[in-house]
Amino acid sequence: MNLTVDQLSESELLARIFPRLHTGTTTLLGPGDDSAIIAAPDGRTVISIDTQVQNKDFRLLWPNGSISSGYDVGWKAAAQNLSDINAMGAVATAMVVSLTLPRTTPVTWVEDFADGLSAAIVALGAPQCSVAGGDLSGGSELVVTVAVTGSLEGLEPVLRSGAQVGDQLAVCGNMGVSAAGWALHESSVVASDFTPAMAHAAGLFARPVPPLAAGPAAARAGATSMMDISDGLLRDATRIAAASKVCVDLDSAMLAAMAAELEETAVVLGKNALQWVLTGGEDHGLLSTFPAGRTLPEGFIGIGSIVSMEAAVAAVIIDGQNFEGVVSGALGWDHFAV
Amino acid sequence: MNLTVDQLSESELLARIFPRLHTGTTTLLGPGDDSAIIAAPDGRTVISIDTQVQNKDFRLLWPNGSISSGYDVGWKAAAQNLSDINAMGAVATAMVVSLTLPRTTPVTWVEDFADGLSAAIVALGAPQCSVAGGDLSGGSELVVTVAVTGSLEGLEPVLRSGAQVGDQLAVCGNMGVSAAGWALHESSVVASDFTPAMAHAAGLFARPVPPLAAGPAAARAGATSMMDISDGLLRDATRIAAASKVCVDLDSAMLAAMAAELEETAVVLGKNALQWVLTGGEDHGLLSTFPAGRTLPEGFIGIGSIVSMEAAVAAVIIDGQNFEGVVSGALGWDHFAV
Repeated sequence: MNLTVDQLSESELLARIFPRLHTGTTTLLGPGDDSAIIAAPDGRTVISIDTQVQNKDFRLLWPNGSISSGYDVGWKAAAQNLSDINAMGAVATAMVVSLTLPRTTPVTWVEDFADGLSAAIVALGAPQCSVAGGDLSGGSELVVTVAVTGSLEGLEPVLRSGAQVGDQLAVCGNMGVSAAGWALHESSVVASDFTPAMAHAAGLFARPVPPLAAGPAAARAGATSMMDISDGLLRDATRIAAASKVCVDLDSAMLAAMAAELEETAVVLGKNALQWVLTGGEDHGLLSTFPAGRTLPEGFIGIGSIVSMEAAVAAVIIDGQNFEGVVSGALGWDHFAV
Repeated sequence: MNLTVDQLSESELLARIFPRLHTGTTTLLGPGDDSAIIAAPDGRTVISIDTQVQNKDFRLLWPNGSISSGYDVGWKAAAQNLSDINAMGAVATAMVVSLTLPRTTPVTWVEDFADGLSAAIVALGAPQCSVAGGDLSGGSELVVTVAVTGSLEGLEPVLRSGAQVGDQLAVCGNMGVSAAGWALHESSVVASDFTPAMAHAAGLFARPVPPLAAGPAAARAGATSMMDISDGLLRDATRIAAASKVCVDLDSAMLAAMAAELEETAVVLGKNALQWVLTGGEDHGLLSTFPAGRTLPEGFIGIGSIVSMEAAVAAVIIDGQNFEGVVSGALGWDHFAV
């Protein structure tokens, strides 16, 4: 009972982790050697890396009494990394994982992490993706880093820089739901008092569900630009605008419709649902542009258009106006500024 | 003066890092989008991940007054990751980097890190390798994680599992030198009192020099097994033995010759030079096996042979005997056990 990682050797701990790691179809050599080997059938490998830090990106115990289990942290690690591959229009092929663990970390937490990581890979729709290797370190706080690889399967990548004036702007996936869930975790509202909408938001904060089929579908449908919304719609739209040298014009009616679904939770917490939609991160939906008139792929909804920089008052506007007049506040997350 | 990372936005900090990152020839899309894209010319990508944690793997200030600069930590991150690719017989193609930074980290430390990482890539002989992307997080201690990719360039990987009874055992690179350098850092001997041998050891601990050309050369020369020595010769030889289901027999005369070069430092510190050779990690030399009679590639020296498990008293022996009789003590590093 209560076995902690400092009571096992590294090889004993690895022996408990390895059998729990999902094995897909694209790994030519899995864990146990100096490196893993992954198939790259079209001669290119897409790669990204993402980190979660204890008490920054997650808490083991939240103010409202919720717990981020190892399973939750593993699920989120998989989700946010798979999303970065999805946002290129690619399909994930493998993950390598680095865990920095305090000595008192329960071995069951690490096992749950491996289970959550593997479960998310399958449940989110990337069963071909293997957990191909990793690294264990000791440290004073939990740090989880995953690097993920993907295959473009012969398609061209969809970059942030391809948006054209006149394009439709569209999103796929949840918008602001994870932010509402985060606010619930940070509140005094215990889970047993949640309404169904609150439980839904809290659940998606703990275990995000990026729309993995949608990235490659958008690429095939001719998306001109794409990224995943990890730092909030306004902030990430600014990145599309900057990379493409265009202005993003958001439709307030669509934003209001998305906010309406969060209104009940916002009222209970005394928060602004529209601000969650505009600045909430970690839903890992997709923000994409498509040529005017093009039928949007399944799951995408239009939320605005791309206009010329010259005609606009800012890189991101709402109904043709500077969004500062519509909603004030932070543009999303910044890891150092508070 | 003394600008710290919490005084910059993430994008401002990235703007200072990006221009310092080495760009090689194998990156099809570099930093700035959701993912990077790397060439995988033979349809396979080798991948590994490695982490350094402050006060575990490095100290900003050591007992003897030495400092691990950002440049040193960046160099070591590159070296240990490049070594994992080298140990497969592959050539590095790209790195993605995750930095977890305390708010008070000087911006110059991060800039120095990027410089050291990039300088090592070029100086160690991997100029084709790009730093293709990364991630920044806040945390209470510095954690540096690098994932590295490589290309086998049409060759088969050299695994840990291929050693055959009768093979020659050979090493390439430094043995125990980094351990001597670590002991100096942990001692009361200040750098100004170092002999040339001590300065050499301390320098290689701070900035290891894995023999990067030797991995692909060994693969071409028909190496039957290979790994990089990151946790000590005895411990890593045990891994070759276990993976290949053989016994590794080390030649004590060769071990003694390697220890002799460290003897002066060992005497000053009251340590055992042979133990550094046998259990010292982080030199990132190569441990390889070659068929009997095969001329060893440049830089490799024979240090023993592969014998049958059935005939042996342990997985790793010295001159045919259990090594416990030759040197006692730990089998190398374990990240949690102390």
